[in-house]
Amino acid sequence: MNFIQKEILKRGKILPGNILKVNSFLNHQLDPSLLNMMANEWYQLFKNEEITKIVTIESSGIALALLTAVKFGNIPVVFAKKGSSLNVGEAYTSTVYSYTKNLEYYISIEKAFLNEKDRVLIIDDFLANGRACLGLINILNKAKVSIAGIGIAIEKGFQPGGQILREKGYRVESLAIIESMDSEEGTIKFK
Amino acid sequence: MNFIQKEILKRGKILPGNILKVNSFLNHQLDPSLLNMMANEWYQLFKNEEITKIVTIESSGIALALLTAVKFGNIPVVFAKKGSSLNVGEAYTSTVYSYTKNLEYYISIEKAFLNEKDRVLIIDDFLANGRACLGLINILNKAKVSIAGIGIAIEKGFQPGGQILREKGYRVESLAIIESMDSEEGTIKFK
Repeated sequence: MNFIQKEILKRGKILPGNILKVNSFLNHQLDPSLLNMMANEWYQLFKNEEITKIVTIESSGIALALLTAVKFGNIPVVFAKKGSSLNVGEAYTSTVYSYTKNLEYYISIEKAFLNEKDRVLIIDDFLANGRACLGLINILNKAKVSIAGIGIAIEKGFQPGGQILREKGYRVESLAIIESMDSEEGTIKFK
Repeated sequence: MNFIQKEILKRGKILPGNILKVNSFLNHQLDPSLLNMMANEWYQLFKNEEITKIVTIESSGIALALLTAVKFGNIPVVFAKKGSSLNVGEAYTSTVYSYTKNLEYYISIEKAFLNEKDRVLIIDDFLANGRACLGLINILNKAKVSIAGIGIAIEKGFQPGGQILREKGYRVESLAIIESMDSEEGTIKFK
């Protein structure tokens, strides 16, 4: 069992509806030491890929993406913005359907921050149905950016996102893959 | 002129309506080296304050807050969430009025992540009318948390937020204070 799996068992809470609450260290309160260890894993996995940029989606991917970018020698991070904003100019956009919130939302990245010479690593906290990640890939494809891979903190292996992305040929490196979890028993099984 | 003022002049864009666009390094694309230098400034300013936690608001405060937390020896970061979320349980909440978006929104922090023994440093990218910061202070006061100060990347000195907070007795440390800016001329004057 690796450090992130241990942390999930120690500090995660399972709620009905297959919700895993890890907001004490990953996406509301942040534990910088732990996030840094995760960033280091992705660095070790992708260090020979000549990554030029880390790409993620606001909000909970930002911290992980930033620490990963530091490991890669302070390369830029770009995070896709949700919804629309006065300050976003000409941008690549895509729609993402959220199962947890039961709504569709826009994500966008300003065109100036992606170019054809970029080779990016996508970083995100969760992979479940893969909709957010597919939206991001859609944007990166529009920008003709090369995608080296996808680094995920926690993959819900019982949901189809990981399989969809791997079948499309993407290298997905999830630090913890949950095979099943039981909110009544409070148990988690990792793959 | 300090490094952040130089970067604003070099990479910032002034739009009509007193909008300063610094999304090439601060809040859409992130420059980790620069953000790290900013984090170090706040660390130097507040290192004797026995800070236990860094608090910010999603999304654009997260990167700055995280790197600052690393400087303070990997203390926890908590970021207030905007709107409501399925995964947020019992929380302290406050409302914030956004002038740029002309709407009121909720921010919240789960009660478990703040306690009376905490001494927090608030970090955010912008200070203009101060509404977001006042909302955050409202939450911190509900949690009876001690506030050591407020670290801001860019303060719009011609808007009232900074004065309001300082008159309330808070120590506000802004790395760049803009006295005036002119979208037609493309000029910025710092205080």
